[in-house]
Amino acid sequence: MDLLASFKQFIQKEQLFLPGNKLLLAVSGGLDSVVLTDCCIAACYDIVLAHCNFQLRGAESDRDEQFVRKLASKYNKTVLVRKFDTEAYAKEKKISVQVAARELRYNWFFSLLDAHEADLVFTAHHRDDNIETLLMNFFKGTGIAGLRGILPKQNKLVRPLLFASRADLQAYAEARDLQWVEDSSNASDKYARNYLRHQLVPVLQELYPQVSENLAANIQRFRDIESLYHQAISMHTKKLLEVKGNEVHIPVLKLAKADPLNTIVYEIIKDYRFSPAQTNEVVGLLTSETGKYVQSSSHRILRNRKWLIIAPLAAEDAQHLLIESTGTINFKEGKIRLEESAAADFTLSADPKIAALDAKHIRFPFILRPWKKGDYFYPLGMQKKKKVARFLIDQKLSATAKEKVWVLEMNKKIIWVVGMRIDDRFKVTNSTKSILKITLETA
Amino acid sequence: MDLLASFKQFIQKEQLFLPGNKLLLAVSGGLDSVVLTDCCIAACYDIVLAHCNFQLRGAESDRDEQFVRKLASKYNKTVLVRKFDTEAYAKEKKISVQVAARELRYNWFFSLLDAHEADLVFTAHHRDDNIETLLMNFFKGTGIAGLRGILPKQNKLVRPLLFASRADLQAYAEARDLQWVEDSSNASDKYARNYLRHQLVPVLQELYPQVSENLAANIQRFRDIESLYHQAISMHTKKLLEVKGNEVHIPVLKLAKADPLNTIVYEIIKDYRFSPAQTNEVVGLLTSETGKYVQSSSHRILRNRKWLIIAPLAAEDAQHLLIESTGTINFKEGKIRLEESAAADFTLSADPKIAALDAKHIRFPFILRPWKKGDYFYPLGMQKKKKVARFLIDQKLSATAKEKVWVLEMNKKIIWVVGMRIDDRFKVTNSTKSILKITLETA
Repeated sequence: MDLLASFKQFIQKEQLFLPGNKLLLAVSGGLDSVVLTDCCIAACYDIVLAHCNFQLRGAESDRDEQFVRKLASKYNKTVLVRKFDTEAYAKEKKISVQVAARELRYNWFFSLLDAHEADLVFTAHHRDDNIETLLMNFFKGTGIAGLRGILPKQNKLVRPLLFASRADLQAYAEARDLQWVEDSSNASDKYARNYLRHQLVPVLQELYPQVSENLAANIQRFRDIESLYHQAISMHTKKLLEVKGNEVHIPVLKLAKADPLNTIVYEIIKDYRFSPAQTNEVVGLLTSETGKYVQSSSHRILRNRKWLIIAPLAAEDAQHLLIESTGTINFKEGKIRLEESAAADFTLSADPKIAALDAKHIRFPFILRPWKKGDYFYPLGMQKKKKVARFLIDQKLSATAKEKVWVLEMNKKIIWVVGMRIDDRFKVTNSTKSILKITLETA
Repeated sequence: MDLLASFKQFIQKEQLFLPGNKLLLAVSGGLDSVVLTDCCIAACYDIVLAHCNFQLRGAESDRDEQFVRKLASKYNKTVLVRKFDTEAYAKEKKISVQVAARELRYNWFFSLLDAHEADLVFTAHHRDDNIETLLMNFFKGTGIAGLRGILPKQNKLVRPLLFASRADLQAYAEARDLQWVEDSSNASDKYARNYLRHQLVPVLQELYPQVSENLAANIQRFRDIESLYHQAISMHTKKLLEVKGNEVHIPVLKLAKADPLNTIVYEIIKDYRFSPAQTNEVVGLLTSETGKYVQSSSHRILRNRKWLIIAPLAAEDAQHLLIESTGTINFKEGKIRLEESAAADFTLSADPKIAALDAKHIRFPFILRPWKKGDYFYPLGMQKKKKVARFLIDQKLSATAKEKVWVLEMNKKIIWVVGMRIDDRFKVTNSTKSILKITLETA
């Protein structure tokens, strides 16, 4: 294999960078990054080297830093070096040292891009890294994203050596008489990746001599499969999702017919911080009553009549708020307070901002939401139903004022057009023993 | 695990058979099929046992047959037994003994279904079989079809134990004190499957204790991914393919924009016996000249102007025949013969079934095809072009006769309205040295 020719071809075929781009090379000093540097030099790319000293291997870490500094001066290129207190960072963030090193490394690289030191980051990941990642994901359990491996280009991260095997890099380095440093942590089977590399892959190769080539070809196919998978998912979501302000509304009947249901549901909810394990709960909402919901750290999925409504939890944003008990709740147009009291202790008020309802008829949860076309209720004092739209016209509200009207709904019935009129069916009568008092406070 | 309860649940969830169905149980006498039989008896299903004696293991094969006969009489059920000369069959068909056994087995089962001995075939494949299949496909290289494993139901083949692990079956058999026979070929690492089972899976389990569960969960997800993949593929093929009689026409410009191109092309051509390796050649047709083609054992994909045309090779079916040299070619309406001769030896004929063209203007390949709307040519004796449709009206052809008119095309020009009129631009003149004579012979 003519590595340099293949390197240039791969860059062109995958359109990895544009003429004039300055490239930040992540250089540890190991075989892979030394070969990457040499290839970039040979191809006359405009490069700057970057080396992270994670200070995890004592003198060896410093040896590596010195080596990379010398490498840069050999090629007459700039090298940026940063020392990290990786262990302290890991401890503080309560993450593993490996994850910490990864975070520190990429955060620094991206800050260098932000500071216009370069346009893209080049890393020396090669085909065998990709195969190892594939195998780890596969054995740990994965969807399609874990099968398509590392991408040649992802945003500003470029892996121009993905086409080459470790053996290809080694042969190139030997032919060009390149020097590199060995990372002693590579030699042990301490990490899963190393175990795979040194134990499992050789066993597989005995059984399937072409296994590395087969797995590399799988990765190519899985990349296409993933792309088609996402095309199908977006075909479904286009049909299913109706964006309304900061909410997403999904018609229950349509969603129930989507196939394969669980995977489509998961692809919809994962953008709102729901976990794979919550998929079944959300599917359960398809056959549940109005008012049931499933919640993530940022969103709630609420069953409301024939809709699932994905709404942000933050009250100031929500268009559908769930009220499950008495207390106070903030919403876009103000705040409402719900309290229960004995009828004997209560004096009825004419203030439309205070609703008094017969608690006998009340069952939580309520839904607090803006009124919409098609809403109707039985205005206090009337024996027949009236469209809310008609009611608002009769109240002579301006178009702007109408937009700010919310309703309080219980079991598909509007019990209060908030701040204006309660429903006649829930009014306090002589036989009322307990009263639910709801007060609107506007800012 | 309550295996019997899970068995019934799995059958119900996957809708594996209908009430009243008679089930043919494939029973080798090994653990898996003995447990399957016992579960079906316990669930009161209507079963008949079927045992293949492949006569590959001498006395052991006969021992197994006797065992299964006794098993059937223990449960008071019918058993169908068939002896096969597997080695002779394998030799005759030039296939491995394993493939031969598989073919014989399923051919016999399906012939039993055809003879109304039963409605469905039940086999005892379990979760670990599925995982082994997944691993073998994965290491040998696969697309999505090889990842989703064995299906619980495929046509009339049902695998009702796919939910259970080998250990689950073993526990059930021991609890119910069931007897079974061991296949001595199972004990060796002779076959890849056994190697995986006995060598690789234990190594994996050491590294990833949950690996079997993870892989089983992968299979579930991959099944959904495959289904979405096919949805996306059929979205593309619906847009791209135009079926015309027994041909499929694909607009080149549209296909070139399809993404991911190679996978979509492969999914289109694989139904016409093209191999994955031919995908790149077919993609090459997108930038080739008219007349280039790629061929499988049954079909040809022909570049014709702005179209790719997938046509059967059998001449009597084809609507687009490629002619690459002089000689004779059969088509739907008869036969045409092409021959070249010196002008000096030639006498022009008035027979419209004989075309004489100046060979100087001729470059193979030709395409022989039915005329279509929009076709035009320069009828012999005219200096300007004329629509073929208009020409046929002037010829006073009946509607049926018009449907049988074909044209011979060269490099996007019609050179002959077959059996009727040649194109003026290709006529023989005083300066003609060599003549291409084309004769139409109708049945």
